[in-house]
This record gives sequence, C-alpha cells and structure tokens, in this order.
Amino acid sequence: MAVCEGKTIKFSNAAITSFAAVVGKIESQGPYGDEFDEIVEDNKGTAETWEQAEALLQTKALHHAMDKAGLAPENADLIIAGDLLNQCTGSSYGLKDFYIPFLGIYGACSTFAEGLLLSAAMVNAGYVDNSAAVTSSHFSSAERQFRFPLNYGGVRTPTAQWTATAAGAAIVTPALAPPYIRAATVGKIQDMGITDLNNMGAAMAGAAYDTINRHFKHMGTHPETYDLIITGDLGEVGSEMLYDLFKRDGVELKSRHKDCGLMLYDRERQDVHAGGSGCGCSASMMCGHFLKQVKSGELKRILYAATGALMSPTMVQQGGSIPGISHAVEICYK
Amino acid sequence: MAVCEGKTIKFSNAAITSFAAVVGKIESQGPYGDEFDEIVEDNKGTAETWEQAEALLQTKALHHAMDKAGLAPENADLIIAGDLLNQCTGSSYGLKDFYIPFLGIYGACSTFAEGLLLSAAMVNAGYVDNSAAVTSSHFSSAERQFRFPLNYGGVRTPTAQWTATAAGAAIVTPALAPPYIRAATVGKIQDMGITDLNNMGAAMAGAAYDTINRHFKHMGTHPETYDLIITGDLGEVGSEMLYDLFKRDGVELKSRHKDCGLMLYDRERQDVHAGGSGCGCSASMMCGHFLKQVKSGELKRILYAATGALMSPTMVQQGGSIPGISHAVEICYK
Repeated sequence: MAVCEGKTIKFSNAAITSFAAVVGKIESQGPYGDEFDEIVEDNKGTAETWEQAEALLQTKALHHAMDKAGLAPENADLIIAGDLLNQCTGSSYGLKDFYIPFLGIYGACSTFAEGLLLSAAMVNAGYVDNSAAVTSSHFSSAERQFRFPLNYGGVRTPTAQWTATAAGAAIVTPALAPPYIRAATVGKIQDMGITDLNNMGAAMAGAAYDTINRHFKHMGTHPETYDLIITGDLGEVGSEMLYDLFKRDGVELKSRHKDCGLMLYDRERQDVHAGGSGCGCSASMMCGHFLKQVKSGELKRILYAATGALMSPTMVQQGGSIPGISHAVEICYK
Repeated sequence: MAVCEGKTIKFSNAAITSFAAVVGKIESQGPYGDEFDEIVEDNKGTAETWEQAEALLQTKALHHAMDKAGLAPENADLIIAGDLLNQCTGSSYGLKDFYIPFLGIYGACSTFAEGLLLSAAMVNAGYVDNSAAVTSSHFSSAERQFRFPLNYGGVRTPTAQWTATAAGAAIVTPALAPPYIRAATVGKIQDMGITDLNNMGAAMAGAAYDTINRHFKHMGTHPETYDLIITGDLGEVGSEMLYDLFKRDGVELKSRHKDCGLMLYDRERQDVHAGGSGCGCSASMMCGHFLKQVKSGELKRILYAATGALMSPTMVQQGGSIPGISHAVEICYK
C-alpha cells in the first residue's frame, strides 16, 4: 500500500519572541531548577484543588511570557493551548480570564510542539500578529485521572514515568530575532499495541521515529545536521526503543539526542523511575532551558519532537491499546 | 480596560470539496434523516462499546468524505479532529488507521468549526493541499462520561439537551468550486457563571454573541448580510439568550437564525428536551444539510458559529463554572 508522506511545512517569518516556564517544587530540585521563571512550592499553589492548581500554572506561565514580550492582553491575537486534564480544563480555566481568542488543542504530551507548530503557521501566513502556545501538566491531577488515587499508594512499575508539575508558554511573532521556527512536521498516530498505562515511552517511540524520519527526508537532513534532536518524554524505555528503530535504518541517533523526560529530574537522587512525562515536561525544558540556548546561539539548529501517548483509561479498560503521536518543530538561531 | 478584539481571518483560496455525515437511529428519524450519508441503526454499530462505536462514526464519515473527493489516504496531507470523549479518543482511535498526519483539537461542541477554520488556514496558506475536519459525538458515551450512567435512569431536566450520535467530515482544498470558506473568527472563552451540567445552552450563549458580534464588526456585516446565521447547539434556552443579548444592541437576530440543536430532532415527536447537542450535532447538520444548500447556491452566504461548553465534571464537582466558546466560519457560494 502506498503510504501517506504528509508535508513538512517551512516557515520564513516566525520566531519565538518570549518564553517562560513555571514548575513545582520537585521539578525545581532537579538539575535545571534555577532556570525556571517561577517555582510553585506547594502542590496546590494558592488554589483549592490540584486541577485548579494546574490551571494556575498556565495562567502564571502565560503572564510571564507576555510580560517578557511586553504584550498586553488587548494586543494579543491568539492563544493555542491544551493539556492532559479531562476536557483540557487546565487551559480553558487557566486562560479564560485573559479574554484572548483561544484555540484548544489536544496532543497529550506532544501538545507544546503542536501549539508551536500551529502558532508558527498562523503567524507566518499573516493571519495574526502573535500567537501564544501554552500547556501544562500536574503530577497529582494526572495520577488521579489516569491511574490511581494518590492515597491508594500504588507501587509504581520500573517503566512508569513521573508526570511533571510544570507549564510552559511561548509567544510566536514574525521573525525579528532568534529563536526562529523554520519548519515543522505534523505527526501521524502510531499504534504499537501497548496496553500498559505505565509504559508510555514504548507507546510513543514509534511515533517519534516516524515523524523525525519524515522530517529528515523532507528537509534533506540527518542527525548530524542538528546540534540536538530533543524528544519530549520518551524516558529511558522509549529512548532506547527510538535508537533501535533508527539503527534498523543504519542511522545512529543517540549521540545527538536528548530527552526532556530524562533531563528534568535528577534520576539518581529523585525517584522518578523511567523519567519525567506530561505536557509540562518538555514545555518547561524548552522554555526554561533549550530556547535560551538557541536565543544565545549556543545551539544553532535543533529539532524538537514532542511525543504524546493518546491514552484513555476508558479505552484501556475496554482492552484498547495506547496510540502515540509526535509533532516535530525545527528551531534555529539563524 | 481595553479589550482584546482579535482578528477575523480572511481566506481567498479555501473550499469545502466534499463532506459527509453519519448518524444514529434516533437522528435518522428526525426531519433531516434522509439527508445523511449513512445510518448506524444499532447504538454500538459493529463495535463492542459505545466509545468504540463513536470512533467508528468518525472512521465512516471520513471514508465517505474521502470517497466523494476521490482522495486516497496516500494523497491526504492532514486531518484536524477532536471530540468530547476523554482524551479525544473518538478521533485518535477512529482515525489512526488512515495513517494521515493528524492534529488533535478540543473545542467541545465547537470542534467542527475549529476544524474547518484551521483546515482553511492551512490550505489557504499553501502549507497543505488538503485538510479534513472531522468530529463526532455519541449519546451513550457522552451521558456516561459527563452526567450519569444510563442504567441509573436519571430524570432529565427541561434545560437538558440530547447529545447527538453523529459524526461529520469535510475536506478542505484550494478553491475550485463552492462552498468557499471566506473568513473565520476565533472565539474567546466566556464564563457566564453557569454551574448546571444540564444547562449547556446558557453556558454557550455569551460566547456565540461575542464571536458573531466581532465577526460582524470586522467584516462590516450585519444579520441581513447573511442568508442564515447558524449556531451549533444552543438549543431553546441558549437561542433565546442569544436573541436577548443582540437585542440589547438593537440588533434583531432571530429571523436569520437557525440552531442545529433545534433542527436535528423533531422536538414535538422526539423527547430531546431543549434540543440536540454534541460535536456531531452541528457537524452532521452542516455536512448533511447546509453545505449542500451552499454548494447548490440555494444559500449564498452563511455564518456558521458552532458553540462549545468547555465543561468538566471534575471542575463542576469542585464548584467550578462551565465556560463556553464559539468559533465562526463564513461559508459562501461565491
């Protein structure tokens, strides 16, 4: 059967003008803890519930990004946001009081890349003057919703990942200064038949492979073209699977690869098993760390391939598998 | 405070090349029953669960639309889809086997308008050659998830709406023939303080008012400019509120207005209370009925303002309100 190749979209006029990350206490104690814009020390922040606390992370992240860009709400044209909470309420509750046109998206933990991709598309085409990509996740709200009540005290399996309590926001405008968004590849849903809610990395590895591979092909690039290829939250299990998939093609990815899920926490000291995950994981690592490096020119060209497990407890309880998706965004200093 | 106006985006090169609707048995017994492409007589179709049945509605709707357009999966560039199920699994499970690049969106019952808007944006900018907007809803899966188990036999309140078992799919391409997508306005989240899970119409009316109003203003139009202004699923309660909101500005909307939620069912004969709702409600009315009328020239210019209640049972149980959103798409014969 002929396979759909899709398109890699190229942009000539889109840049990330400002970006900000807000994280929880545990994330602030990881190796990049001092790079984030704000730390929320308490799991609920000033909110009454975990869900409301997650919404507040998005509020804060977008406020920081808008402040840095000097963008007032009345001059903002668009927000593109989503999260893991049922009905994406981290975004709708967290961002409603900005009163800015809003497009809700859902890509599980690939959401931040989807938001950057669509923001670049809308700005580059001249439809809007600016677009904010925002996302979040929260350990406690995610565990309750997707797995077990926290008080149940279920033992985590070795493949389990730790949902980051974190949010990231980035404002995309026409290209004046780096980081520039130069290209993006929309992911296809890939179902590797994984049915274990505690093995997200394996569910997403095939999607990351497919998207990165198509991006290379369409752009005429290879791993060495990039300073770094950054995946969202494959964790230890998913990253190894990704290397194996590329090895079948004779491509060595490992030396250029970083996974945000393996960076956000100190895995020797912090008990996060196979790594971090959640929409906020790669969003906070991008907005707290990597985008700064591209802005300064320390990194010249990166490929950010966020990864999402399109899982639903309902579907898994009915015997369904967990499809994965990955969207890739190429971000450059020049 | 200065208020964000947002932008109304204009398109010169986007048309809806094909469209299809698949509905359930009750919907097939409504006034437009013979206009749909396929009827699924049994509530589960050939699937084992309601959720899988909903996913199958999307599969079928997209197959019909692609067949009509003569579009093979390997030539398809993009799907933009979402639904009401937790983690949007109606879309991800229903569309994964097409193996086409996929962007997940979430706009509750406004999803179909969001999909059309983004599809037009991507095609008009030349990023892709075609983009499919797809969505669905299912009475049984929605009631179980958002309200009560069906076997509980809860009495429905007069303001309650009936979630449509229906899916719609539309393929947007460069403009060769009508219906053309000429403009679109992204909605802002509006919170009217509604906390009743059985009063969606009231939660969405303010959002519809805001978006339609801004669309009129940016386009220099008024109700009489359009043959019809079609809202998604305000139902009886929400539609009356919408008229009242416009009346405050001295604008009479009612004579040009149709609400898909008040059309899909025969409210005299079918016990749907305040009307239909769900992503599939306006998607099936658009793809089954209205787009045909624009294609033939019977309708020359319509404004389709789908409406979504961004509700979450978790947030409502925690005392939160139900924010609404509405995205508007202007569709023309010329």
